[in-house]
Amino acid sequence: MSSITVYEVGPRDGLQNEARPVSTAAKIAFVDALSAAGLPVIEVTAFVSPKWVPQMADAADVCEGIQRRPGTRYTALVPNLIGLDRALAARITEISVFAAASEPFSRQNINQSIDDSLALYREVVRNALAAGLRARGYLSVAFGCPFQGDVPIEQVLRVTRALLEMGVYEVAISDTIGIAHPGQVRRVLSALTGAIPPDQLALHFHDTRGTALANVLASLDFGIRTFDASAGGLGGCPYAPGATGNLATEDLLYLLHGLGHETGVSIDAVRAASVGMEAHVGHPVASRYVRATASRRSP
Amino acid sequence: MSSITVYEVGPRDGLQNEARPVSTAAKIAFVDALSAAGLPVIEVTAFVSPKWVPQMADAADVCEGIQRRPGTRYTALVPNLIGLDRALAARITEISVFAAASEPFSRQNINQSIDDSLALYREVVRNALAAGLRARGYLSVAFGCPFQGDVPIEQVLRVTRALLEMGVYEVAISDTIGIAHPGQVRRVLSALTGAIPPDQLALHFHDTRGTALANVLASLDFGIRTFDASAGGLGGCPYAPGATGNLATEDLLYLLHGLGHETGVSIDAVRAASVGMEAHVGHPVASRYVRATASRRSP
Repeated sequence: MSSITVYEVGPRDGLQNEARPVSTAAKIAFVDALSAAGLPVIEVTAFVSPKWVPQMADAADVCEGIQRRPGTRYTALVPNLIGLDRALAARITEISVFAAASEPFSRQNINQSIDDSLALYREVVRNALAAGLRARGYLSVAFGCPFQGDVPIEQVLRVTRALLEMGVYEVAISDTIGIAHPGQVRRVLSALTGAIPPDQLALHFHDTRGTALANVLASLDFGIRTFDASAGGLGGCPYAPGATGNLATEDLLYLLHGLGHETGVSIDAVRAASVGMEAHVGHPVASRYVRATASRRSP
Repeated sequence: MSSITVYEVGPRDGLQNEARPVSTAAKIAFVDALSAAGLPVIEVTAFVSPKWVPQMADAADVCEGIQRRPGTRYTALVPNLIGLDRALAARITEISVFAAASEPFSRQNINQSIDDSLALYREVVRNALAAGLRARGYLSVAFGCPFQGDVPIEQVLRVTRALLEMGVYEVAISDTIGIAHPGQVRRVLSALTGAIPPDQLALHFHDTRGTALANVLASLDFGIRTFDASAGGLGGCPYAPGATGNLATEDLLYLLHGLGHETGVSIDAVRAASVGMEAHVGHPVASRYVRATASRRSP
């Protein structure tokens, strides 16, 4: 069985979507615990405007405070050139940019058309590469959009190609609203991998409808070897309607290790990191694995 | 794509594991709503001792009250000859018997050794078949036991064969503690389907670790065409530690329909039946699909 890269998004995508603000010290301790768990890449924060995303206002302080473990990549989301400058100052060595597969989602989420966002990212990625950084692309709403419903595969393919052509090393095909099922995953990946090598694709699933691990299983058949996940499933509160439902890192690891894949990550150490965040976010984490192993159960 | 049989266990396996007792009238309305949703087979109740399972004490009254829809099979769990007589009096036309793949689980759960239980079921099934009924077998803890841990595949195969040899038409291979992952499913089904035709096997998964749909996906590759599920995921409260975590019928349907399989079941009608039970069981149902589609969400 092959090795799989688990791309950890909890400190950024997770905490950004939690209702309760988390202290800088707690974020630093969280990233350090995830590093120690063996995660090969951690998206630490986002250098976005604090006006729009107050949860990430301490991005520089988080990057300053964390211990950088050799062998772990520390990445940050960067929406524009100002963000890139802040990321460089914070000694981030890898950035990600965030495009959408649907026009209305792009306008609603980042207030730009898809093509305007791609023009901007082209400049951001060029500057990042020139500064010696690596760059990654997200493609949101690739499996369905809350505003337009179905998203044509041609649109997914077009924006994915545009991101790769500007120099990102991979694109995370993202199920932002957690609607994908394996039937759709097979259709989308059949089209994508017909045009793009699978090692330039990552998959970013949400477990909103309970299908995330089935979607991962379907993706593995197409040669996908990188999956995003959020420790504990942070970013989606199991008790709240409207939970975003990030796939939990622990649940993903349980699946991958059960299939015999190597990840280099300790599931117990990730669980300890997640459970350590429960007091900060104010609720139990959503991970099914964490909940199952936390409860003392009778048969 | 082929047709898949969804074997509905909510009224029996679901309600039996709910903390709050549900009125006979509510149970009857629930079964009737599931019938109307198009489910081809519904396990209505269990003719077990009210001393051991007080939730099922009204088994005869439930069977008396339900509307029997042509084309739907109404089944009941039967532990012994007394239960069979009660099921016959209640005009049940199909029974199920419940064996275990691990010796300590068998002794703990039904207070009998595996071989003693098989001897008893042999008589129950013989009498049921003689009375013109169909009989089904459950094989619990086939993927792991809370008392002995791993369960050797030889033991799973031995008890499955014994059940089939006594005349049951299929055996539901059950992940009672919700520990199975697709790697294990492939190993177990590879061994089982090497010896037993897949149309004599059903799979009964719990979603305790979030792997149920991935396990279903893995099972389909082995020719399995019958899956158990509980409407709404009843039997496992999403807010309680120790939830049993039955796979929700709606979640299973979302996967199967997405793959293009036909079930004959309306997911919306099952959801309406489940949501109608929330006031009776005293909590929101666990189904991810129901939760996702119940919440009004912003992207």
